[in-house]
Amino acid sequence: QGTRDHAPAQAVLRDRLLSAVVSCFKRHGAAAIDTPALELRETLVGKYGEGAKLIYELQDQGGELLALRYDLTVPFARYLAMNKINTMKRYHVAKVYRRDNPATTRGRYREFYQCDFDIAGQFDPMIPDAECLKIVHEILSDLQLGDFVIKVNHRRILNGVFAVCGVPESKFIPACSTVDKLDKIPWEEARSEMVGEKGLSPEAADRIGEYVQLHGGLDLIERLLQDPKLSQNKLAKEGLGDMKLLFEYLTLFGITGKISFDLSLARGLDYYTGVIFEAVLLQQDHEHGEEALSVGSVAGGGRYDGLVGMFDPKGRKVPCVGVSIGIERIFSILEQRLEASGEKLRTTETQVLVATPQKHLLAARLKLISELWDAGIKAEMLYKKDPKLLKQLQYCENTGIPLAAIVGEQELADGVVKLRDVATREEVRM
Amino acid sequence: QGTRDHAPAQAVLRDRLLSAVVSCFKRHGAAAIDTPALELRETLVGKYGEGAKLIYELQDQGGELLALRYDLTVPFARYLAMNKINTMKRYHVAKVYRRDNPATTRGRYREFYQCDFDIAGQFDPMIPDAECLKIVHEILSDLQLGDFVIKVNHRRILNGVFAVCGVPESKFIPACSTVDKLDKIPWEEARSEMVGEKGLSPEAADRIGEYVQLHGGLDLIERLLQDPKLSQNKLAKEGLGDMKLLFEYLTLFGITGKISFDLSLARGLDYYTGVIFEAVLLQQDHEHGEEALSVGSVAGGGRYDGLVGMFDPKGRKVPCVGVSIGIERIFSILEQRLEASGEKLRTTETQVLVATPQKHLLAARLKLISELWDAGIKAEMLYKKDPKLLKQLQYCENTGIPLAAIVGEQELADGVVKLRDVATREEVRM
Repeated sequence: QGTRDHAPAQAVLRDRLLSAVVSCFKRHGAAAIDTPALELRETLVGKYGEGAKLIYELQDQGGELLALRYDLTVPFARYLAMNKINTMKRYHVAKVYRRDNPATTRGRYREFYQCDFDIAGQFDPMIPDAECLKIVHEILSDLQLGDFVIKVNHRRILNGVFAVCGVPESKFIPACSTVDKLDKIPWEEARSEMVGEKGLSPEAADRIGEYVQLHGGLDLIERLLQDPKLSQNKLAKEGLGDMKLLFEYLTLFGITGKISFDLSLARGLDYYTGVIFEAVLLQQDHEHGEEALSVGSVAGGGRYDGLVGMFDPKGRKVPCVGVSIGIERIFSILEQRLEASGEKLRTTETQVLVATPQKHLLAARLKLISELWDAGIKAEMLYKKDPKLLKQLQYCENTGIPLAAIVGEQELADGVVKLRDVATREEVRM
Repeated sequence: QGTRDHAPAQAVLRDRLLSAVVSCFKRHGAAAIDTPALELRETLVGKYGEGAKLIYELQDQGGELLALRYDLTVPFARYLAMNKINTMKRYHVAKVYRRDNPATTRGRYREFYQCDFDIAGQFDPMIPDAECLKIVHEILSDLQLGDFVIKVNHRRILNGVFAVCGVPESKFIPACSTVDKLDKIPWEEARSEMVGEKGLSPEAADRIGEYVQLHGGLDLIERLLQDPKLSQNKLAKEGLGDMKLLFEYLTLFGITGKISFDLSLARGLDYYTGVIFEAVLLQQDHEHGEEALSVGSVAGGGRYDGLVGMFDPKGRKVPCVGVSIGIERIFSILEQRLEASGEKLRTTETQVLVATPQKHLLAARLKLISELWDAGIKAEMLYKKDPKLLKQLQYCENTGIPLAAIVGEQELADGVVKLRDVATREEVRM
């Protein structure tokens, strides 16, 4: 349940998609690492908020207690701490595992790829954060997925909002997890969750509501910096200061057109400490007029300055910021698009089929194909002793092999090979 | 335990190795598939002989009972049966999981890559089998791992040997699993296991001993075809007939020089039904004279005509033959070799560092690097507002970036960029 096999055509499409993402990561100077799919259970505990119940655990068969990784961020932090690395720009493309209910949405699985890019190290503020947003912008533009918006917020601004709305600090995280649902539920529902389940006062909830429904650009940042309550709050001021600097850099990158400072963005994971962001694709809703509808998140990330310290015996901190590309959803979009286009993907790269027009020529085919392989040429032959020429040419047509190298009795006698262009039927003796 | 992280230099080396293997698989016209790392437990049961105890099981957290895949062959057979596929040439590169005691040998892990190539379908005998051996030969030659030998045997020949030596059919598989250990233990030890644990008669064991210590080429096949006992046994005759045909094809491929028909080769897995093979690297033992020592198996495979039928509700059979490349052992050899050479692998592909020689030029760097990224150029910059030029050039030297694009006050005023070759220190204004 929630897993799938990839047939050759899907494997080819996925390969193309992953290559596009990886080539962007390499363009930004990242090095690859790899970590095991298995982690110690204790490594994953307490990092994922409400996601914890979705962790796959291995049976205790003696030895260490293990679990399947839930994301690539926690293993990266564990890797940095274990190897005492202070500075690193890395990417990692691998499968992660979540015991989610995968039927809910298209493109959600229990085993799925993540493509992560992260920058670890103590640097001047917002320069690596801006690069992560640039990367999301590049990838979504390169893949031509249509219009998109990258929502940006800051954990400190959210915490500042909670503080000035009268939420006690112990309830910041619960309140945050309700705000996180605002892309799926209306405000009214979130409000009653805050008051009912999370125990906030109705007044606090209403005040939060006024803030988290705001979104905009640099103008909104400036407005909030003048906000009589927020401007008095240290957390909010720091967050807004970061956000202003971030927008300055994004302006230099020329990408603010796709960026929305959105106070309803919260991100579910516990470990974020600064800038957070999430990219959603927009779809023109042709039936209901011109309004752009969000069709779901395709990338997300943020700053997590405390996570590495959780794995370091001395609590030594390594600030990090990173982005994860939601490859499964993008893959299902590309898959649908390919299906709609009717285009048939070639699943092999074979350049030439070695064929014979008469019987008793298997030896000649085996000798020739062996020479081709040794010369690095991608070649196939049918695994029959005496296949019909027509069958051999049909195989080329069905699998997209462009050339047939034909050795018949005449060719053998003359010491030549007849090379046939399958599409045009032109033949050359060589 | 038994897993490891790959640091960037290891990830680069592994990437190179996997690319070499995959490009050989593609040269032979294989298509890629992918299957989940998780399989139903029942899928893996009864396929691995003594390996069964090494299967990692997931905890029962509700829902299906799952296990981590033990190899890529059983998932391939399950895939063919589920999708009712009769003919397919596929490769699959992915990690598999075994609760082995990994300390025993170098290059053995609990999580490790397998690189598999398999041909499924009803074809004329020995043509796909010969191609699998050709692939092993190509890969080991391409990787320049030194001298190697590919041992070949046939399950029917082994079973024929057991039959003519007086072993009852019910003890073929136990006897086979003892023969499988002959590359690790001397014959005397194997003999006492056969008599003691496996309950064979001492006479039967002695007769087996005479056969399984034989190895050679076409000459040995001819000799055994004349063997008074074996030539009367149907299984042995069929197996030897296959083997003769196989050697004919391998001669056409020009690779018999590295092939050894070795009656001690048994392969541990239950599912093999025909030709089996295993490639070992040979190492010149300089201290003890000229004799070539085996340093372990780096590839193996064989024919398994019954496995797909085990997953088909109607028991419909799909004959298969395949090969698995033991990438971990090869990787550790390449790693040692790289270490010995002192060569330093570049872990990133960055072409140019965007640098500034004066302060207050962050905006200029951000604008320029953004242009480079958008033009598809691999570019980095330091994440500092005002880095020293020397630091920037040192970063190039440390990470192997060949060029620095320098924008200073003068360049900005002139509307140019100074491109510096880091190694030669030559500069061009452009």
